[in-house]
Amino acid sequence: MFAEYDIIVVGAGHAGCEAAAAAAKMGSKVLLATMNMNTIAQMSCNPAMGGVAKGQIVREVDALGGMSGIITDETMIQFRMLNKSKGPAMWSPRAQSDRMRFAEAWRLSLEQTENVDFWQEMVTGILVEGGRAVGVRTSLGINIRAKAVVLTNGTFLNGIIHIGEKQLGGGRAAEKSAKGITEQLIELGFEAGRMKTGTPPRVDGRSLDYSRMEEQFGDENPSKFSYTETTPLQNQRSCYITYTNSEVHEILKTGFEKSPMFQGRIQGLGPRYCPSIEDKINRFADRDRHQIFVEPEGWNTVEVYVNGFSSSLPEDVQLKALRKIVGFENAKMFRPGYAIEYDFFPPTQLNLTLETKLVENLYFAGQINGTTGYEEAACQGLMAGINAHNKINDKAPFVLKRSEAYIGVLIDDLVNKGTEEPYRMFTSRAEHRILLRQDNADIRLTKLGYELGLADESRMKAVDKKIEETAEIIAYLNNKPLEPGDINSMLESMGSAPIVEKQRAGQLIKRPNIEIKHIAAAVPSIAEYLSKFKADSVEQAEIAVKYESYIEKEYAMASKMSELENYVIKEKIDYRNIPALSAEAKEKLLKVNPETIGQASRISGVSPADISVLMVYLGK
Amino acid sequence: MFAEYDIIVVGAGHAGCEAAAAAAKMGSKVLLATMNMNTIAQMSCNPAMGGVAKGQIVREVDALGGMSGIITDETMIQFRMLNKSKGPAMWSPRAQSDRMRFAEAWRLSLEQTENVDFWQEMVTGILVEGGRAVGVRTSLGINIRAKAVVLTNGTFLNGIIHIGEKQLGGGRAAEKSAKGITEQLIELGFEAGRMKTGTPPRVDGRSLDYSRMEEQFGDENPSKFSYTETTPLQNQRSCYITYTNSEVHEILKTGFEKSPMFQGRIQGLGPRYCPSIEDKINRFADRDRHQIFVEPEGWNTVEVYVNGFSSSLPEDVQLKALRKIVGFENAKMFRPGYAIEYDFFPPTQLNLTLETKLVENLYFAGQINGTTGYEEAACQGLMAGINAHNKINDKAPFVLKRSEAYIGVLIDDLVNKGTEEPYRMFTSRAEHRILLRQDNADIRLTKLGYELGLADESRMKAVDKKIEETAEIIAYLNNKPLEPGDINSMLESMGSAPIVEKQRAGQLIKRPNIEIKHIAAAVPSIAEYLSKFKADSVEQAEIAVKYESYIEKEYAMASKMSELENYVIKEKIDYRNIPALSAEAKEKLLKVNPETIGQASRISGVSPADISVLMVYLGK
Ligand SMILES: Cc1cc2nc3c(=O)[nH]c(=O)nc-3n(C[C@H](O)[C@H](O)[C@H](O)COP(=O)(O)OP(=O)(O)OC[C@H]3O[C@@H](n4cnc5c(N)ncnc54)[C@H](O)[C@@H]3O)c2cc1C
Ligand SMILES: Cc1cc2nc3c(=O)[nH]c(=O)nc-3n(C[C@H](O)[C@H](O)[C@H](O)COP(=O)(O)OP(=O)(O)OC[C@H]3O[C@@H](n4cnc5c(N)ncnc54)[C@H](O)[C@@H]3O)c2cc1C
Repeated sequence: MFAEYDIIVVGAGHAGCEAAAAAAKMGSKVLLATMNMNTIAQMSCNPAMGGVAKGQIVREVDALGGMSGIITDETMIQFRMLNKSKGPAMWSPRAQSDRMRFAEAWRLSLEQTENVDFWQEMVTGILVEGGRAVGVRTSLGINIRAKAVVLTNGTFLNGIIHIGEKQLGGGRAAEKSAKGITEQLIELGFEAGRMKTGTPPRVDGRSLDYSRMEEQFGDENPSKFSYTETTPLQNQRSCYITYTNSEVHEILKTGFEKSPMFQGRIQGLGPRYCPSIEDKINRFADRDRHQIFVEPEGWNTVEVYVNGFSSSLPEDVQLKALRKIVGFENAKMFRPGYAIEYDFFPPTQLNLTLETKLVENLYFAGQINGTTGYEEAACQGLMAGINAHNKINDKAPFVLKRSEAYIGVLIDDLVNKGTEEPYRMFTSRAEHRILLRQDNADIRLTKLGYELGLADESRMKAVDKKIEETAEIIAYLNNKPLEPGDINSMLESMGSAPIVEKQRAGQLIKRPNIEIKHIAAAVPSIAEYLSKFKADSVEQAEIAVKYESYIEKEYAMASKMSELENYVIKEKIDYRNIPALSAEAKEKLLKVNPETIGQASRISGVSPADISVLMVYLGK
Repeated sequence: MFAEYDIIVVGAGHAGCEAAAAAAKMGSKVLLATMNMNTIAQMSCNPAMGGVAKGQIVREVDALGGMSGIITDETMIQFRMLNKSKGPAMWSPRAQSDRMRFAEAWRLSLEQTENVDFWQEMVTGILVEGGRAVGVRTSLGINIRAKAVVLTNGTFLNGIIHIGEKQLGGGRAAEKSAKGITEQLIELGFEAGRMKTGTPPRVDGRSLDYSRMEEQFGDENPSKFSYTETTPLQNQRSCYITYTNSEVHEILKTGFEKSPMFQGRIQGLGPRYCPSIEDKINRFADRDRHQIFVEPEGWNTVEVYVNGFSSSLPEDVQLKALRKIVGFENAKMFRPGYAIEYDFFPPTQLNLTLETKLVENLYFAGQINGTTGYEEAACQGLMAGINAHNKINDKAPFVLKRSEAYIGVLIDDLVNKGTEEPYRMFTSRAEHRILLRQDNADIRLTKLGYELGLADESRMKAVDKKIEETAEIIAYLNNKPLEPGDINSMLESMGSAPIVEKQRAGQLIKRPNIEIKHIAAAVPSIAEYLSKFKADSVEQAEIAVKYESYIEKEYAMASKMSELENYVIKEKIDYRNIPALSAEAKEKLLKVNPETIGQASRISGVSPADISVLMVYLGK
């Protein structure tokens, strides 16, 4: 019934959408097979993209030529740059999205992508011939052939929804779960596991008293995700902050004896860093309140997302507790929170291209690999789409290094260390995070995306211009002499020591609280000079100048690391004698006795910090 | 967990949405409980509202204060007034909608309706105490209490989807079916039946060759559905027309041996007037082509609805046949057509208020009553919502007469005659269709809606103004003398006989092809006079003048009918001796031997035409 495709992508979540778009743009004929075309790119949980480390991933996806940044920009209702008071490695863009518009924009964008066809049906199996994936089989028994298959089933494989003592089959509230695929993969020799995640209740915004909460505005001059010419927000919607209290906690505790987690009905491990409210109460028994973010779900809808109140306690307990939160006294629920358990496949069964080791031309991306989060899913989808396309066209694998991108860190962690709980990205996972900033993802990655045939020429030109401008501005700043008379009153007003003889502008920018904008305000000729350049280039130059020494050190470290990657550990070390190693690292290193630093670094439980310690110990 | 509601509406299809909105606006506290809040007001089948007889219903719903007309106006992409070349009783508005926007607009509108709460979950049973509905029970086992319950489950009750030899459980493609309710209602003593309906495949507009099809534009000066101040379309999208051919038919026939309908796997009766393509080929074997309307699903999506090609043949047969249609040579499908079988409850179990006879305060509306079509569902929902509200507030039942509204015809037919196949509205079902026009629904019904507390004051004022203006224009036209010299050249150019002495404008408008606009163009003083009035009032006056005799006759007939309703048939009639009666009517009348004309008219199989014959026979 179907002609052969180049690539079939199963599932149109965040991973599947990026995979399909990327492979199609690179020239593959793609079929996106998904259960329900009305739920393409549904945000299963909170209607937000980005956040700490996750925002950096979205910027990287965008820089490579992916779509998530553009779609977010087009449909966001609030934008904030998190951690602006910290160093630039921590700056993290985050947007609140209009849930319906986000899904619609993704769908329309895919529809406009040449080479993407759609098929609405459940996929129930993979066609495998000679150890190679050659297509999929659907619930109607249709065989659709392709040269490669990308699985992005999200939380749908044998999904079970838990609320209190009740269990319902489903891949998401009100959606069917998917059957067949896990069973077949196990037969093929794959190892499968079980994980869980949860989501809070949705409430009716009309029933909340916002005047009793703290308003959280979007940024005054909102930035955005995409390096392309998307337009920043003109108007924004506010979020609100409130808190649980001990009364809330006491009520929640009355549901513990019916909790599917505490009573052991849920086998799968949940995300430790995204705990349910009952988890938080349990684990942090001494804390008498937890923060709740009250987030609108769109421009016009009254539906509200209660961030921080994920729960799978009985629905009546959820509601009763909710109504004890300040501002929620009369809250009406649209539906309770729930937990969902689903199958995943330990990602150590993958190559760094996200191709499975067992079945050639079969790729896994997204939550199926044990990750959690839209951004984590999206970037894996992008990488799987790229690699599937390259593979069937006999092109080189596309792998990003840990020093090149959070995406590289994520995939390296997954493939080499596996994960026992839902994996989400943190800045702390990236040893080179000073290099992996949201401001320079285009400089790091757009050239690679362009060479792949994914990022288009206009992106490349924009980056080239940014690089050029940045260099020019840096040179200018490092040269430009400032007279004490011109600058000292500004310095004093900022509480910074005055200069006694003339100094280069670049020198002053290195001072902690002195920014380029302060200097420009004081010295009109600098302001005039800078006005010729794009704001991005000026920012880039400022960061380069201000953090020069950190960045240089980090580059040196990165190159040393890549050298060390192959450094052979000749001596037999008694790791117990290195006190600075973590207990877990000592144990694992002793057990594995790695032959190289590279191997050591990939042992699960051995952190980048442990590797640094080891390197010091080895005198490197 | 919930406080008691006044009314719980189960299901948020077209019936449920209107029911919830109406009852809430009248002041009831309403809970709209539906399986999936993302599918509120989903159009299950074609993305279009209105059409012959159905368009009139939407106008009536609007006139009473319902929402379907407003939502359609806000989200349509094409508008056409069908049958404009026929008399005004046949004029029928029809709009192509943007499917996603339609659903979104309904949801946002309900969210903005005070008194409507939402709950997303499957309802599995009705709470009944002392023969009275007092709430519902959900899949989580929650009991939610209310004074009345409106069931609008659509095609979801034990829905089974058929494609060729395959069967899948589901209420709609990719959606779960609903279980529990039928079984409970049967236990309570209800009779349930099985019906089926079907839908065509969806295809990728990018794969069609529109240049080989006939373009069907929207109206040049598009009208709209709502009597309120919605704005008519500025831009429109075109539909396209193409045809099946004998090659298409031959291919489809190869699938007949796997057809769930022809092989008896589907028990339920389907809509005779909305047949599948295989049905059409089978029943009209002599026709070598059938018309296909190629309809866009929205402003931007490439998804296309293949109107006229509903099918439940195997998917590969559907695709192969589709590709033999001119313009479809390279068609790509998003999903195949399918048939769906579902439970309905013969509507003879209802009162004219749509309350069930068996269980007090329990109302059924929409497809659950054996109807088909969004418009039929919407108007029932509206009436059930109104009546449920009135009932629990000890107010009089709200029943529309057959001479007042298509809605009256529909409910009277359902309740008194029942239906054996999915019931859809036709103009021929309404014996007083000359009165039940799309142009005067506001005059007929808005006052009633206003008195109910449903239509707001601005609607009432607009109608009063229209009535006033219309009367004024009619008087003017019937008075205004026209001189031969002023008007004869226009009459000649229209091929109409010249006048020899002066005549009233009203007289000339009665001529078949002479319209008010022709006269106004010829006589500037008339044009100037009319320019003071709203176009609707002018049109209304023109219809009143032009069709005066028909309309008056029909009014007389209607009042006679309502007299006859109670007319006792004293003599014992041998109906076989009345040749003009249909065979079916003779048989049924003989069998039932009705006591009044009213009773006779409500016998299934006895048409309005038969009643006219009977009346003539009885000398009335
Ligand atoms: C209840 C819930 C709570 C969550 N909470 C959080 C949270 O707190 N924090 C966080 O970061 N992340 C959370 N997530 C995770 C986040 O939603 C996912 O990480 C992300 O959506 C994964 O993207 P994906 O593309 O891998 O899969 P998904 O977004 O799940 O998409 C999978 C897609 O595949 C389709 N599909 C599945 N199987 C088949 C099949 N056999 N045939 C055809 N189509 C198929 C589905 O219809 C769907 O379109 C939560 C998810 C859920 C469901
Ligand atoms: C495949 C298909 C083809 C069709 N073809 C045509 C056609 O050709 N011509 C035509 O005129 N009409 C057609 N129709 C019919 C048209 O879609 C319906 O007449 C119309 O949608 C009925 O409206 P409704 O409100 O009664 O039900 P629906 O629109 O079906 O809505 C029912 C709602 O109730 C919800 N629901 C159901 N059960 C429960 C429960 N237990 N708990 C909570 N929520 C529940 C559902 O989720 C849904 O929101 C077709 C329908 C289908 C499914």
